[in-house]
Amino acid sequence: MSLLIGNIGSLVTNDPALGEGPLGLLSDAAVVVDGDTVAWVGPAEKAPAADESVDAAGRALLPGFVDSHSHLVFAGDRTAEFNARMSGRAYEAGGIRTTVAATRAASDAELNANLTRYLAEMLRQGTTTVEVKSGYGLSTADEARSLRIAAGHTEETTYLGAHVVGPEFADDPAGYVELVTGEMLEACAPYARWVDVFCERGAFDGEQARAVLTAGMAKGLRPRVHANQLSPGPGVQLAVELGAASADHCTHLTDRDVAALADGGTVATLLPGAEFSTRAPYPDARRLLDAGARVALSTDCNPGSSFTSSMPFCLAVAVREMGMTPDEAVHAATAGGALALRRTDVGRISPGARADLQLLDAPSHVHLAYRPGVPLTAAVWQGGVRKA
Amino acid sequence: MSLLIGNIGSLVTNDPALGEGPLGLLSDAAVVVDGDTVAWVGPAEKAPAADESVDAAGRALLPGFVDSHSHLVFAGDRTAEFNARMSGRAYEAGGIRTTVAATRAASDAELNANLTRYLAEMLRQGTTTVEVKSGYGLSTADEARSLRIAAGHTEETTYLGAHVVGPEFADDPAGYVELVTGEMLEACAPYARWVDVFCERGAFDGEQARAVLTAGMAKGLRPRVHANQLSPGPGVQLAVELGAASADHCTHLTDRDVAALADGGTVATLLPGAEFSTRAPYPDARRLLDAGARVALSTDCNPGSSFTSSMPFCLAVAVREMGMTPDEAVHAATAGGALALRRTDVGRISPGARADLQLLDAPSHVHLAYRPGVPLTAAVWQGGVRKA
Ligand SMILES: [Zn+2]
Ligand SMILES: [Zn+2]
Repeated sequence: MSLLIGNIGSLVTNDPALGEGPLGLLSDAAVVVDGDTVAWVGPAEKAPAADESVDAAGRALLPGFVDSHSHLVFAGDRTAEFNARMSGRAYEAGGIRTTVAATRAASDAELNANLTRYLAEMLRQGTTTVEVKSGYGLSTADEARSLRIAAGHTEETTYLGAHVVGPEFADDPAGYVELVTGEMLEACAPYARWVDVFCERGAFDGEQARAVLTAGMAKGLRPRVHANQLSPGPGVQLAVELGAASADHCTHLTDRDVAALADGGTVATLLPGAEFSTRAPYPDARRLLDAGARVALSTDCNPGSSFTSSMPFCLAVAVREMGMTPDEAVHAATAGGALALRRTDVGRISPGARADLQLLDAPSHVHLAYRPGVPLTAAVWQGGVRKA
Repeated sequence: MSLLIGNIGSLVTNDPALGEGPLGLLSDAAVVVDGDTVAWVGPAEKAPAADESVDAAGRALLPGFVDSHSHLVFAGDRTAEFNARMSGRAYEAGGIRTTVAATRAASDAELNANLTRYLAEMLRQGTTTVEVKSGYGLSTADEARSLRIAAGHTEETTYLGAHVVGPEFADDPAGYVELVTGEMLEACAPYARWVDVFCERGAFDGEQARAVLTAGMAKGLRPRVHANQLSPGPGVQLAVELGAASADHCTHLTDRDVAALADGGTVATLLPGAEFSTRAPYPDARRLLDAGARVALSTDCNPGSSFTSSMPFCLAVAVREMGMTPDEAVHAATAGGALALRRTDVGRISPGARADLQLLDAPSHVHLAYRPGVPLTAAVWQGGVRKA
C-alpha cells in the first residue's frame, strides 16, 4: 500500500542533499510512503502515483518528533508539590520518593495504562519516537517490571536504576551501587537498550556513575548520562569519555565541558521543560551550537520536575530562552533526538527513512515557535500508519 | 433542555460563597445547566435530575477562559519577521504596516474566515468569551468593516483606530487623531462596545490618547487602554482617571501606577504572550497582586508580537515568569478577564451564570500550569452548547 502526501507547502527533510540549509527545506513538495517507509521525496508536480493520497493543502510536513528523554513509567502525580513550589509555600516534599512509593504500589496494568496514555498524548502532539526510562522502582523487581512494561511500547528503553539511591539503602549508597551494577542490572538488561545514571550531588558521583555505566556496557547496554543539571560536575566529561550517545540537561557547563561535547561524539540533550517547571536557569544552547556541539531537545516528561509531554512547547521555550533559532530548535527536536538515540531511520524524511511524519496546521515549521502553546498538529503517521 | 455534569473531581466556581478560597473550589461536585444558563452547583450526591448527563470522571471543570484582549481581524502573517527576530538576523521589517496592507487588500470573506478560524482555535483550547479589536484598517472604511466583521462573532468589539498613526498620515499625526475622533469614530461606533488606544512612544501620547478615549466615550463607547507596554508613560494613570475597565500590558509601572491600579476600578490585564514572543521583560504580576490590584490574563493574539491563541500557555508562562500562583493565574484567566470586560455573567460557574464551561483532561486546574503546552481541553460548552 502506497500513500502520496501532496501539496506540501513546506517540507522539512533534515537532509541537506534534498533541500535548502540544514533542514533540507523544500517548497511545493510531495512525499510518497510505501508501507512503513518513505519511498520518494521531491517537487509536488513530479510525484509518482500512489494507491492513496492526502492533500496537505499548503501546510508544513515535518519528521515526527524524536523525544529522547522521558520518565513515563510511574504512578500518581505530584500536583500538591508543584502547586506549593509555584505558590511559594513550604511543602513536606517527598519528592521523587513519593513517585517511587506510588509506582511500587501500582499494578502492572496501572503502570501500563499510564504509559499508554502519555505516549498517546505525545503522539497527538507529533512525537513518534519516545525513549522511556525506568527509575521509579529502585528495587530489582520494580526496575525490571518498569522496563518490561516500557519494552512493550518502545525499543528505546533505558535502565535508570541509578536515578537516586533506593530508600532501603539510604545509609548504604555503596551497597545500592553494588545492587544496580549486579543483581538489578542482570534482571533489567534483557528489557533495556540503554544504561543511564543521574550524576549529580545528592545522587551519584563521578566514580559511582562510571561504575554504573561500565557495568551496563559490559552487559551490552549503551550509555547515556543525566549530566550537569543542577551544578557543574563530572557527568559531561564522563559521558564523552565513555562514548555516551547523549549527555542530558547540560545546564551547568564549564568551557572544558563545552569543548568536550563539541569535539566528541556525544549529543547535548537539553530539557527546558525542567527549567520551566522549577524556575531554574536555562541551559545555553547558543554557546553549545556556536562551539560546534550537536544539540537535541526533549521533554524530560516526568511528574516531578517537568510534567510536559509537548515537544512543541519545549521547542518554543528553547527559542525564547536558550538562544536557538526556530530552525535549530526544529532540527534539535527531530534530527537531534534521532542522533541522541543513534538512530538513522527516524528524524528525517528521505527515501529509506521510517515513515514517521507530522503535518502541521500551519504553513511552516517556524510556526511551532511563532505560535507557542497552540496545538498545531493536523495529522501524524507512525511507520506509515495514520495515528492522529 | 437540562444537562447534568456529574462526578467532577474539582470544580472552579470563582464564587467564594460556593467553595474554598478565591476560586470557590468544590470537590466531588456536579453542575446542572438549564438552556444556556448554570442552574445548580453543589455536591455530586445532591445533584437534581436532568434531561441529559455527562460523567466528568473525576476531572476538573472550570469556567471557560475569558480572553479580553485580541487582534483577530487581519490577513497575512509575519512569519519571516518573527523568524528573523528570533534568529538574530536583520529584517527590513514592515512591522504592523505589513499587516495593515494585507488586511486592507483582503476581502470581507477572507477576513471573516480568518477570524472564524482563530476563534474556533481558541474555543478548542477552552476560551468561550473573546474580545476582538480593530486596528489593522486605519482608514474609516477598513476600521468600520473590521468591526462589522468582528461584531458578527462577539459582543466584545473594540474600536482601535488609534493603534498606530495610519500610513497616509505619517506626516500629520494630529490629522489622524482628528480622523479617529471624528469621521472614523462615527462609522465605527455602531459596531463597537469599547474604545481603545495604544498609548506609547511612537504611537499616541497622553493628550492624544485622552482625546481618542473621551471622543469614544461621548459616543457611548467604554474605555480600555494599551498602557505602559514598552516604557513607562501616562497610559495607566489616564486609564484609571477615565474609569477604563482595563489597562492592558502594564509591563513598565511606577509605584504610583501600581497604587492607582490598586485604588481604582481598572483591571491590570497582563499579556505574557507578547513578552514571550519578543524576548522582552515580563510584567510583575506579584507586585500588582500584593498591592491589591485586580489582574487579568489574556493572549493579545495578533500576528506581530504574540501569535498565540492559547490561554493555557499564557497562564503557564504567568506562573513561571510573573510570580503568580497557579490559583491566581487561573482566576486571572477566567474571573479576571470577565472583570476586565465588566461582565458578571461569565468567568464563574454559579447559578445564573452563562453556561460557558471547560472540562480538563486532568484532575485539577493546577495542571494548566503543571503540564505546560499539553492540550488538556477535554470538552467545552458555550452557552450550554457542547462546542468541543
Ligand atoms: Zn531525566
Ligand atoms: Zn494589543
